[in-house]
Amino acid sequence: MTNLRGFWLRSLPELPPAHCATPADTARAELRQLAARCPAWGGIGISVDPAMDRDSYALEGKILRGGEAGVLYGAYALAEAALQGKAPADFPGGVQAPAFPDRMLNGWDNMDGTVERGYAGRSLWFEGGRFAYEPDRIRQLGRLMASVGLNVLCVNNVNVHEPAEGLIDELLPELAAFGALLRPFGVRLMTSVDFAQPIRDGMATADPLDEGVQAWWARRADAVWAAIPDFFGFLVKADSEHRPGPFTYGRSHAEGANMLARAVAPHGGKVVWRAFVYNCMQDWRDHSIDRPCAAYDTYMPLDGAFDDNVILQVKNGPYDFQVREPVSPTLLGMERTALAVEFQLAQEYTGHQIDLYALASVFRDFFDDVPAQRLRAIAAVTNIGRDESLFGHPFAAANLYCYGKFAWNPGESAEESLRSWARLSYPEAGEDLAEKLMIPSRGVYERYTATLGLGWMVTPGDHYGPNPSGYEYDRWGTYHRASRDAVGIDRTREGTGYAAQYPPELEARYSDPETCPENLLLFFHRLPYSWRMADGRSMIQRIYDDHFDGAAMAEQMAAVLRELPLPSPDREEALRRMEAQCRNAREWRDVINTFFHRLSGVEDAHGRMIYD
Amino acid sequence: MTNLRGFWLRSLPELPPAHCATPADTARAELRQLAARCPAWGGIGISVDPAMDRDSYALEGKILRGGEAGVLYGAYALAEAALQGKAPADFPGGVQAPAFPDRMLNGWDNMDGTVERGYAGRSLWFEGGRFAYEPDRIRQLGRLMASVGLNVLCVNNVNVHEPAEGLIDELLPELAAFGALLRPFGVRLMTSVDFAQPIRDGMATADPLDEGVQAWWARRADAVWAAIPDFFGFLVKADSEHRPGPFTYGRSHAEGANMLARAVAPHGGKVVWRAFVYNCMQDWRDHSIDRPCAAYDTYMPLDGAFDDNVILQVKNGPYDFQVREPVSPTLLGMERTALAVEFQLAQEYTGHQIDLYALASVFRDFFDDVPAQRLRAIAAVTNIGRDESLFGHPFAAANLYCYGKFAWNPGESAEESLRSWARLSYPEAGEDLAEKLMIPSRGVYERYTATLGLGWMVTPGDHYGPNPSGYEYDRWGTYHRASRDAVGIDRTREGTGYAAQYPPELEARYSDPETCPENLLLFFHRLPYSWRMADGRSMIQRIYDDHFDGAAMAEQMAAVLRELPLPSPDREEALRRMEAQCRNAREWRDVINTFFHRLSGVEDAHGRMIYD
Repeated sequence: MTNLRGFWLRSLPELPPAHCATPADTARAELRQLAARCPAWGGIGISVDPAMDRDSYALEGKILRGGEAGVLYGAYALAEAALQGKAPADFPGGVQAPAFPDRMLNGWDNMDGTVERGYAGRSLWFEGGRFAYEPDRIRQLGRLMASVGLNVLCVNNVNVHEPAEGLIDELLPELAAFGALLRPFGVRLMTSVDFAQPIRDGMATADPLDEGVQAWWARRADAVWAAIPDFFGFLVKADSEHRPGPFTYGRSHAEGANMLARAVAPHGGKVVWRAFVYNCMQDWRDHSIDRPCAAYDTYMPLDGAFDDNVILQVKNGPYDFQVREPVSPTLLGMERTALAVEFQLAQEYTGHQIDLYALASVFRDFFDDVPAQRLRAIAAVTNIGRDESLFGHPFAAANLYCYGKFAWNPGESAEESLRSWARLSYPEAGEDLAEKLMIPSRGVYERYTATLGLGWMVTPGDHYGPNPSGYEYDRWGTYHRASRDAVGIDRTREGTGYAAQYPPELEARYSDPETCPENLLLFFHRLPYSWRMADGRSMIQRIYDDHFDGAAMAEQMAAVLRELPLPSPDREEALRRMEAQCRNAREWRDVINTFFHRLSGVEDAHGRMIYD
Repeated sequence: MTNLRGFWLRSLPELPPAHCATPADTARAELRQLAARCPAWGGIGISVDPAMDRDSYALEGKILRGGEAGVLYGAYALAEAALQGKAPADFPGGVQAPAFPDRMLNGWDNMDGTVERGYAGRSLWFEGGRFAYEPDRIRQLGRLMASVGLNVLCVNNVNVHEPAEGLIDELLPELAAFGALLRPFGVRLMTSVDFAQPIRDGMATADPLDEGVQAWWARRADAVWAAIPDFFGFLVKADSEHRPGPFTYGRSHAEGANMLARAVAPHGGKVVWRAFVYNCMQDWRDHSIDRPCAAYDTYMPLDGAFDDNVILQVKNGPYDFQVREPVSPTLLGMERTALAVEFQLAQEYTGHQIDLYALASVFRDFFDDVPAQRLRAIAAVTNIGRDESLFGHPFAAANLYCYGKFAWNPGESAEESLRSWARLSYPEAGEDLAEKLMIPSRGVYERYTATLGLGWMVTPGDHYGPNPSGYEYDRWGTYHRASRDAVGIDRTREGTGYAAQYPPELEARYSDPETCPENLLLFFHRLPYSWRMADGRSMIQRIYDDHFDGAAMAEQMAAVLRELPLPSPDREEALRRMEAQCRNAREWRDVINTFFHRLSGVEDAHGRMIYD
């Protein structure tokens, strides 16, 4: 029997047999397993319809008709419905199709076995400079992805470290063998490439306008698609945080991306170009630079200049996966560019998969502001690793699950997706897991780490635990500039002007502190501690209250968790991590409250303990 | 010709021949070389006098009479005098003898080749888990040490990392071969040992009262002295920063140290026991613990309980090698214990051998407060490494030179020792190197990093560059607790009580902010920013002024350096580092001024730029 830790379809214990070669084969195996467990759902046949979109499906009586991969997504949809106790008659009619054709996971796995910002152990597929995995674990990964409709996996870190350059060269046979394990689950491969790779191969330049460079990439593309005909494409982090890129040669990012796009176009390949360019050597003294402005400033002038097979991948917010950010104005501004949003399932700033932090509401908030039609694709940094439960914290699985749900249907409900995950994963736990732990988790973590939109008060580098001035005098463009009188950055037109990057309605909402959402108040405004919040409290009192409340709510979550009937070892693992979360929450509470008390001199209205 | 970079006796280019077996042989070779260069000093004979103390010497007419190593120290003293232009008639008469019999260097070298807090490249003698060195470089080290009278070298880090446990076991032949290179320079070896080493060797305990443990150490001591009959002894860091020690077994440090002392006593060996015990897991909320109190609280009750061949090695100040600290009260308090003071030549908190920081005044200040007669020995952490100049910054050599001078004669003058070093090392540079760079260097560095005794506003871990709150909420017991109104720690009897550890006169001086030395004011007192300094300035204005002045003085030092006639590549190396120092000084100036301006709200009286 397979290790099912981390997989929500616990009630279907068997991996599909290894001889399944296509998603349709896999779908049949899963339906057989489902029928054995839920006889009411037996007898359903599979019909692959080449006329349908690859990923679509429809249940028509006892026939599940669909595209090449759609039949598998349909089979998992049936299984989910069945395992949540629904009857076949409740299953939605009509063609079901995903909102985005490309629903991607980006592994930040290095070939030495480490995972950048990985909190679930070492890489699931790399170790010691090469591929190293149990085939069944990779097939389990494919099953996880397919069960929520994800169809592209980038295998290596966007920061390309040796010997990952070889993935599109001498390591192609290994890459192809790895991909063959995922193909029966409808998953296609992508690799991150280094823009300067031609130089490492002995060429004098990586200038995208150099014909030799263009020919070099064309040859590499030919080799890749010869080895893996359904390969998806290349992911590129260029001119970002010391990575090489077109700027080295005085070329634009459109020139750089299009050069690669033309190399892969004959094979139907894509270039996914990350829009994560900013000055990571900023002088903190310089108030004229505001990092959140960077992507818009860089890419808006290039709107319409990218080839059709370039996807510009933009982080969901303007900074970097903070606990709370406004949506990226770039994703609202560009009109003639294929766009993807990038989320981060790995809990870099959001608790290291120790503290609970369900991202479902991050997805919901995002799509409340950004119409899905603006996007061509969706991507997320993985949160998996070699850890036995795949996710470090067993409940972190919910973030991959919910990501898949929103990638298929951006109209998804945050709460309902978490309820589904909990019902499937821990049927014994009842409602409390979703209602009292997962759904409130983001709000709890936000209260004690980032209230009012105050991010970056975190331990530099590591990004877990409080360090209120850790980034304050650093080069990363991440400042709160708290003084004895005020805190926050004025990002209106009177300040850095960042808010002006938004469409008028959003700009107006953000620019007035009376209409700005309170959870972004100090992201957009610099305000005195005496600022009156809508409920009449002073802003400093609100900061104190949120930190006291957040830590207390973490304790309450711990009490709930102790009472939940969960299977071993997930229960013990979750309890152990919850204890660390409570410790972390107390530390955040005290450090941040002391920091602001030392600055403001204001006492807590309720006389609670704030340390000197 | 030997590489003489880093060696002050540049005018004596040749290493003594490798066939020199004793210090007397070496002395003769050096005197021959001296005579060839300074004929007035020719014709001096060597006479080893077994009746004299090992390290003493006297020049009697044309005969240098001395103990076994004293003749070599005498030869170098003659060379120094000659190379500084003195005549034989000026050489002091009578017996010259060192103040301390044991004048030690502690290498924090790990066998993997790294050096803890090393700023001069990798280890000069370890690499890849074993000894790895050029014999002539080790002989050069021996010559450096002997030329200023140092006679003991501890080869490995006090934090004993694998495979350094083997130094007193299977690696003894390698250790003996290494020591043989230093013996002709009068240098004896010491190793750091791990208190729990019997456990690694398969024993069930390392309890010092266990007879099996005692026998284990006795066997190891037998083996060590059999291999190296003039071996000096063991250095131990126990129960400190997560190192094992007697506390594990409910034993006192006297019980732990005496057990080792009895194992080495039959061989005339010593145990050097580091008194660096404090709570390194302190809760920053807890004001009842004050780290500077720790050594006194731990060791005073044990005064008189240590065996005669135990030397208790205490850091010069109560914290940890800060830019400015008061002297350790432990060294003033213990009456019936053999004591050693430990300095740190490696510039951990004092500029990483990038910024200039001459320690001569640290030694002077120390011996102004601690009578040399209180101490049995003196030790310093080395500042050398595999760097071509041995010291990273070529001028960092001055710190080893001046350390040797004070170890011989604690009455030494800080200024004169720096002048001697400069005259010997860079005769072409004239007076300016000592007067305008080395002598002021500590004051300049102190101004911009630690004015008024405010330490620990440094980047955690790395300890270079400013981070005003980096240690403020951490577990190391190192807090300034700056608020909008005041800064510093009250360490009088009304506060943590630390000052009460001093003899009455010193306590009185430190406890009154009017008599407390200004450079320790905020170490001993918590004061409002409006506090009036002796010259009428407010304390906050003094903080601003010192930071502006410190950065400006660094620029002035750079201007001096640019004009100094120095040999290549020392000139270019020093200039390159000075550029980094000026950058560092500006960063300190602006970060600390901004930090205090945000807190205090007070403007600079002279309207200089303090960033928001």
